[in-house]
Amino acid sequence: MDQVRVIKVKQSVLANNDARADALRQKLKERGVFLVNVMSSPGSGKTTLLVNLINRLKNDLRIGVIEADMDAIVDANTVENKTGVKTVQLHTSGECHLDAKMVDEGMNFLGDEGLDLVFLENIGNLVCPAEFDTGATLKMVLLSIPEGDDKPLKYPLMFERGDWFVFTKMDAISYFDFNVDRVEASILKENPNAKFFPLSAKTDQGVDRLAAALLHEVKAYQGKAE
Amino acid sequence: MDQVRVIKVKQSVLANNDARADALRQKLKERGVFLVNVMSSPGSGKTTLLVNLINRLKNDLRIGVIEADMDAIVDANTVENKTGVKTVQLHTSGECHLDAKMVDEGMNFLGDEGLDLVFLENIGNLVCPAEFDTGATLKMVLLSIPEGDDKPLKYPLMFERGDWFVFTKMDAISYFDFNVDRVEASILKENPNAKFFPLSAKTDQGVDRLAAALLHEVKAYQGKAE
Repeated sequence: MDQVRVIKVKQSVLANNDARADALRQKLKERGVFLVNVMSSPGSGKTTLLVNLINRLKNDLRIGVIEADMDAIVDANTVENKTGVKTVQLHTSGECHLDAKMVDEGMNFLGDEGLDLVFLENIGNLVCPAEFDTGATLKMVLLSIPEGDDKPLKYPLMFERGDWFVFTKMDAISYFDFNVDRVEASILKENPNAKFFPLSAKTDQGVDRLAAALLHEVKAYQGKAE
Repeated sequence: MDQVRVIKVKQSVLANNDARADALRQKLKERGVFLVNVMSSPGSGKTTLLVNLINRLKNDLRIGVIEADMDAIVDANTVENKTGVKTVQLHTSGECHLDAKMVDEGMNFLGDEGLDLVFLENIGNLVCPAEFDTGATLKMVLLSIPEGDDKPLKYPLMFERGDWFVFTKMDAISYFDFNVDRVEASILKENPNAKFFPLSAKTDQGVDRLAAALLHEVKAYQGKAE
């Protein structure tokens, strides 16, 4: 009984959210703002990667950041202090994901006009954020080497819905049992357009390639030749 | 509007769940079954630790395991093959946590009579599982060294509500920036009865101490001198 009631409400919430996400995506497209929804488990290195990536891209693109957390503000402070780009912090009051309404409000706080690229750092969670369309242009999923290569089997929705998959902490690969080929094959089975970026934000290995790919996407989206 | 409707349903679900969890805890107490709710991020090493721990305890205690996943069955197979103890797999159909009803059903499948200790491996998630009482006797939260020592700040409910905190992958501590003293102090501030077990299931460092502490708790719970 309880279960059925929850699901009904959730379906209506999801349908409303989808409509709102589409409207946000359309608005951002008109303004030429490329929004990246960054998702992963807690501790996969989202903030560290964003700092590294933003510092490579900030001379070419005008960048903003929306940080989401249950409660804390540490990530927003870290990003703003280490990159100088404008950052806003969303608190989700216990919700385990961001939805399009929250992101729309975040964009209003950030002031999206004049921005080329906005990173949205979602709540660290491989389950709920996969269900909610945030209106983002691109879904970037991080999987860190220490987490293990069986995660696509266990959190299928996230790995089916993501666009770009970034394997972080590659510098530690000799220490952990993680087979890059196996995890790529496992993701491609359900998600044939998936793209992969193995890297280490600590040693810089592979970050240039991701930065170049992102710059290319943003320029193409804005209809500008690179 | 949507937000309010969700919260109302959630409150009634949580209240029903609390009553059911208390009833389950009472039933297990009468039967002398000690239930441990094991929670963490994805990839923190829950399954590896359980295999190691069960092999140390299975001569002293009759043990069962309830595995929960969105979809997969890999963990249940791993645990049963590597320990020989009876294991059941729950699928949560997209839910990001276990509740007391699911656990009660899992216990019925497992057949709890005659068991001393049951491990419940929750969905890998630091958010939702913290909200739902499963009827467990003890909440064991794992935090792996590669995830970083800022997690209590970001996922406060999990670290306020847990009983025992196990720091896993301690063998990798020289490789990552993780300050054990700092994370312990940060947890104790909101949770003064927290107990800490730094260990590595790979090198066995510290696992004996956790196994001994658990054996002691189970015997005390059953009213038996050790």
